[in-house]
Amino acid sequence: MRLSRYFLPILKETPKEAEIVSHRLMLRAGMIRQESAGIYAWLPLGLRVLRKIERIVEEEQNRSGAVQLLMPTIQAADLWRESGRYDAYGKEMLRITDRHEREMLYGPTNEEMITEIFRAYIRSYKDLPLNLYHIQWKFRDEVRPRFGIMRGREFLMKDAYSFDTDKEAARHAYNRMFVAYLRTFDRMGLKAIPMRADTGPIGGDMSHEFIILASTGESEVFCSKDILDLPIPGADTDFASDLTPIVEAWTTPYAATDEMHDEAAFNQVAEDRKVSARGIEVGHIFYFGTKYSEPMNAKVTLSDGSEAVVHMGSYGIGVSRLLGAIIEAHHDDEGIVWPASVAPFHVGLINLKPGDAATDEACADFYRQLENAGIEVLYDDEDTRAGAKFATMDLIGLPWQLIVGPRGLKDGVVELKNRRSGERVSLSPQEAINRLIAELKG
Amino acid sequence: MRLSRYFLPILKETPKEAEIVSHRLMLRAGMIRQESAGIYAWLPLGLRVLRKIERIVEEEQNRSGAVQLLMPTIQAADLWRESGRYDAYGKEMLRITDRHEREMLYGPTNEEMITEIFRAYIRSYKDLPLNLYHIQWKFRDEVRPRFGIMRGREFLMKDAYSFDTDKEAARHAYNRMFVAYLRTFDRMGLKAIPMRADTGPIGGDMSHEFIILASTGESEVFCSKDILDLPIPGADTDFASDLTPIVEAWTTPYAATDEMHDEAAFNQVAEDRKVSARGIEVGHIFYFGTKYSEPMNAKVTLSDGSEAVVHMGSYGIGVSRLLGAIIEAHHDDEGIVWPASVAPFHVGLINLKPGDAATDEACADFYRQLENAGIEVLYDDEDTRAGAKFATMDLIGLPWQLIVGPRGLKDGVVELKNRRSGERVSLSPQEAINRLIAELKG
Repeated sequence: MRLSRYFLPILKETPKEAEIVSHRLMLRAGMIRQESAGIYAWLPLGLRVLRKIERIVEEEQNRSGAVQLLMPTIQAADLWRESGRYDAYGKEMLRITDRHEREMLYGPTNEEMITEIFRAYIRSYKDLPLNLYHIQWKFRDEVRPRFGIMRGREFLMKDAYSFDTDKEAARHAYNRMFVAYLRTFDRMGLKAIPMRADTGPIGGDMSHEFIILASTGESEVFCSKDILDLPIPGADTDFASDLTPIVEAWTTPYAATDEMHDEAAFNQVAEDRKVSARGIEVGHIFYFGTKYSEPMNAKVTLSDGSEAVVHMGSYGIGVSRLLGAIIEAHHDDEGIVWPASVAPFHVGLINLKPGDAATDEACADFYRQLENAGIEVLYDDEDTRAGAKFATMDLIGLPWQLIVGPRGLKDGVVELKNRRSGERVSLSPQEAINRLIAELKG
Repeated sequence: MRLSRYFLPILKETPKEAEIVSHRLMLRAGMIRQESAGIYAWLPLGLRVLRKIERIVEEEQNRSGAVQLLMPTIQAADLWRESGRYDAYGKEMLRITDRHEREMLYGPTNEEMITEIFRAYIRSYKDLPLNLYHIQWKFRDEVRPRFGIMRGREFLMKDAYSFDTDKEAARHAYNRMFVAYLRTFDRMGLKAIPMRADTGPIGGDMSHEFIILASTGESEVFCSKDILDLPIPGADTDFASDLTPIVEAWTTPYAATDEMHDEAAFNQVAEDRKVSARGIEVGHIFYFGTKYSEPMNAKVTLSDGSEAVVHMGSYGIGVSRLLGAIIEAHHDDEGIVWPASVAPFHVGLINLKPGDAATDEACADFYRQLENAGIEVLYDDEDTRAGAKFATMDLIGLPWQLIVGPRGLKDGVVELKNRRSGERVSLSPQEAINRLIAELKG
């Protein structure tokens, strides 16, 4: 993408309303714009990151055996009356009356709707296990939306729902999601810690939150350093196998949110292994048995001809919130430092003298070669000061900067800068290409 | 994808409520489920097609130079008061009051919001031309939703908005979208005819609808056969060049919707070239000048230092509706016949005898080889009757069926069926693979 044809509205001022660094940087880097309290437009740079995060979530959900569908944003109130949650949900639910005076709502979550879909089609235990997920905009009418997209009202969420014949099978489903979540967050450069958690309004008796440690986190968390050293399950993990050993390894070291914190148990952890910090919730998984299937009558016939109410779990990932969490974990004084897996572009190509024929030609050549290699390039072809170009590229945090100017070209070199380490090296054009392909496609 | 692990709820009965063939087939093929009047869940097979259509739309929007962002679904009423449309829009707008008694709405379109974004950041003619688009769920509270997703209330739409310094530049923007639309619909196997159209509540003085001829269409349309024979602009079209000759070629033959129909002009068309038919609108483009930029104060500074109110256009594609339009154009008595570009999977692999070791092994091998070649396979590994398998594959309309059974394997052959032509050929396993790769990846 050529910057001159892109829409990247960089802000020079640090917006006053932004309390945390991710919110400030997303506004300054032209990634989002607030349209109403807690409601944001995703500007082009922000949308690219959002889509990359979605793809990783999808890939890992699919790998674990979950099947993707898409439920609508607007739901009928009657569906929520069946589960008894319509009145219980309170003011966070955005309630709507349509032109025919029917009561509707903007879905804050989808347990009821997915149970309705399940019971409409599934009759036999032979169709289980089943895990259905979608990635859709949700709305929660927070009293006080804050922290930008970290606690917005309209937000993008992945929610999966598992259906099994009994508790034992449901636990396998739970374990599959547990492992999928470890992989998902790791691929985005996040160290997410599963912590025993309260089940809240979703209900149920087994639940883990996945928490990123960050000083700006909303909740207080406690864990042992042991959990930070555990290996992430590989891409070759067999999700049909018994995943209990992995889940046990990850649930043995102490780790709990403040709601579930047990001071006595925490004191068993060696003093130099204790972590007491703040955290950001990026995922939450629940097993809740027959809480929805029972009142909504979601049953299957078993092999002996009897009927069983299905056991369910639900599994959420805050997709839009993840952008904020990643920035909280990956930034420095100059701006964002994206992990390559979610970077909006891989390389920022900086033309130091647009209009200079040799420099323009060299840049056009780099642009073509890198794009042909499947590397995403943001090409700054604009006629602005070098200082401003560097500051913008540092701010938006692409992993690599390739700096091309007339003086270097005379000596047969260009400069390649690694955004994270700050290291700058002079290389021949061909070496620079080879290096980028090796780093990004190797 | 293995069918035994998928969620494909085929209906045996033809649903009575469905009036048109695309609605019937989408319900029977387990693509959608109605959740409320005019509000649908996209089941896994339907979602796959929706995503393929989105990708084609995105690719062609990007090719034309438009830049993607994403605006939220919920908008503030105040924004619409600025343009004067809040009261004018009527009951089709879903109006919402939030917990703080603020008036909101579920966006039926985004002229106001994109103008607000534009004026917040763009100051200079140097940043123009600019065309920003998004693909987002919209809501129109139709009195009488019908025809399934063809006239739903919650629907997915691509809407683009162009900004230019004057009418002449805006016309170039209009032409770029005109050409992008020709390519977009053609890639989905649709013959879309641009027709002069009424501008309706969007306003403006230049507008074309893109119409698919179909007997179940909602509107009456008239055109000359000449327009059906025109060549589609190639992928190498230079969108920076003057596209007027292409647009002129496509707007010279007679073509109009009933609102704009001119009987006298139509009678100039030779009798055997006259087409009078019903049509489905799949896209609509508008130039409306300063209708929104003037009241909303969206201006840029020109090179001479003076200010100009920007000229705008908007450009819609009914993304979810396109599924219905494609099925209306591509089906037979047995079911859907997807064009390969939007098919949910490319190949249906039918195992005639699951449990038979040789057949299972051959199928597993086909599945692996085809997937490795980038071909998407739905593998029917379920233990059901052959007749039911064939009927399901015909119904869901994948372009190719690869039929593998123990008797054929003994003779060293499998059967390859082309869904559209119905042609079935016996081939060796290797020939079958080669043929599929040549047809789908050639």
